[in-house]
Amino acid sequence: MLTLTPLKDIPLIRQGNDLADVIVNALHTTAIQLQDGDILVLAQKIVSKAEGRMVNLETVTPSQKALELAEVTEKDPRVIELILQESNEILRARPGAIIVEHKLGFVCANAGIDHSNVSPVGSNDLSRSKATLTPLEAGAGEVNATHNPEDWVLLLPKNPDCSAATIRQKVEAATGATIGLLIIDSHGRAWRNGTVGAAIGISGLPGLVDLRGQPDLFDFHLRITQVGAADELAAAASLVMGQAAEGTPVVHVRGFPYPLREGRLNELLRPKDQDLFR
Amino acid sequence: MLTLTPLKDIPLIRQGNDLADVIVNALHTTAIQLQDGDILVLAQKIVSKAEGRMVNLETVTPSQKALELAEVTEKDPRVIELILQESNEILRARPGAIIVEHKLGFVCANAGIDHSNVSPVGSNDLSRSKATLTPLEAGAGEVNATHNPEDWVLLLPKNPDCSAATIRQKVEAATGATIGLLIIDSHGRAWRNGTVGAAIGISGLPGLVDLRGQPDLFDFHLRITQVGAADELAAAASLVMGQAAEGTPVVHVRGFPYPLREGRLNELLRPKDQDLFR
Repeated sequence: MLTLTPLKDIPLIRQGNDLADVIVNALHTTAIQLQDGDILVLAQKIVSKAEGRMVNLETVTPSQKALELAEVTEKDPRVIELILQESNEILRARPGAIIVEHKLGFVCANAGIDHSNVSPVGSNDLSRSKATLTPLEAGAGEVNATHNPEDWVLLLPKNPDCSAATIRQKVEAATGATIGLLIIDSHGRAWRNGTVGAAIGISGLPGLVDLRGQPDLFDFHLRITQVGAADELAAAASLVMGQAAEGTPVVHVRGFPYPLREGRLNELLRPKDQDLFR
Repeated sequence: MLTLTPLKDIPLIRQGNDLADVIVNALHTTAIQLQDGDILVLAQKIVSKAEGRMVNLETVTPSQKALELAEVTEKDPRVIELILQESNEILRARPGAIIVEHKLGFVCANAGIDHSNVSPVGSNDLSRSKATLTPLEAGAGEVNATHNPEDWVLLLPKNPDCSAATIRQKVEAATGATIGLLIIDSHGRAWRNGTVGAAIGISGLPGLVDLRGQPDLFDFHLRITQVGAADELAAAASLVMGQAAEGTPVVHVRGFPYPLREGRLNELLRPKDQDLFR
């Protein structure tokens, strides 16, 4: 049996929060005692927030390329500028849609930049001083904090595998359990409507499970040889998190059917030269 | 909390088996009493087997086009012939890979034709007479049953939405519970390695959940508006079924977070003219 339980009472996460602390407290509130082999799944958004990946669009000066792409896609040129900075390559740009290969290696829309649930009106987040604003890696305009929450966006974590490993180590140290930790985002797909949860950071569980050479029930060799196990778990956890009110960004998983091991996002990423659909 | 429980002691399924009966018995064995809102997830393979979608390759005469594609893809021309018959369009053909738009509307490898776990050596299946062989829809060669299990393949169900509705109605009639029923297969993906579970037949649950217009925590409108909920559930159930020994082809789900409604596969299929990646 596989069980997925959203942790209760996760507070709004702000830059500098210790997510391991938050999770250990929420496990207690939810009356879950971690066991060896359990997995925690975190929404990307709280990891990005804790790491201070918010950017105020008033600080962004779009490049010429961003202005051109903004015209094609009918999007805010400042957001496009951030998308360009976060991406290796633009794969498709159409009105309303921009699909990229993110610097982290995966293909996604808008470089995973998020415009919802970022800055709460009237909350402490609005008191963020210029000094606490995340400096952009390149091309940032002058820093000019604004109180318009519509102007804030959230970039993906800089190194989600590393974020996952760090949080996992702290949770393991606090609980004594050997666990896996997965960071997920919602991705659109080629060919099919709707987003599904997808892994973007992995620590302590397999990304891909290789069944090659295993016999099936009748001792044939299996046609399906590699399972995107971390993505299947990401989709399952995404279902539990829901998408609207970001109330349950951490999900506890018990009963993952494959042995835990060190894993990384890169297992799940098809090299461009082996991809028939780019 | 979302729980996914594989049903115990599902027997090997043969043509003509009543899957609703099999499931009701297995629910009993697993000590699960169905409740309103529960969902059953079935592996495509047992539905196809019950519907007699096995084909003996000795009965298949490859067309000229199949022979040409077999050379490109280095696959059995008889299998290619079946793939052509099952597909609307070939999207990509490379050594080892043939990606199609299936007649059912979705994009998948090999038209979903399965070569594993099909015919048990020494089982009753080998006594199937010519009369019980599924006639091919077109281009079938002469029917010539063989005892070599390597020569049997399994096509997808003819109308998985309809199969799902039929099985669901029978299970509902036997148990009194109002449920959803999902038929899934394992699909490869653009851009990412590994297969994940994907919906191919839906009855009584949403394929797509539309969150457009719903406020997020801070009353912004959501950027992510449509969730591929049935695909997320398919991935979750696929994780529980595993891939190797086809021992657990039915999974019971409790705690699906969205309201059940009539749904269909078509919700999840992006029309070709709106697809940037074909």
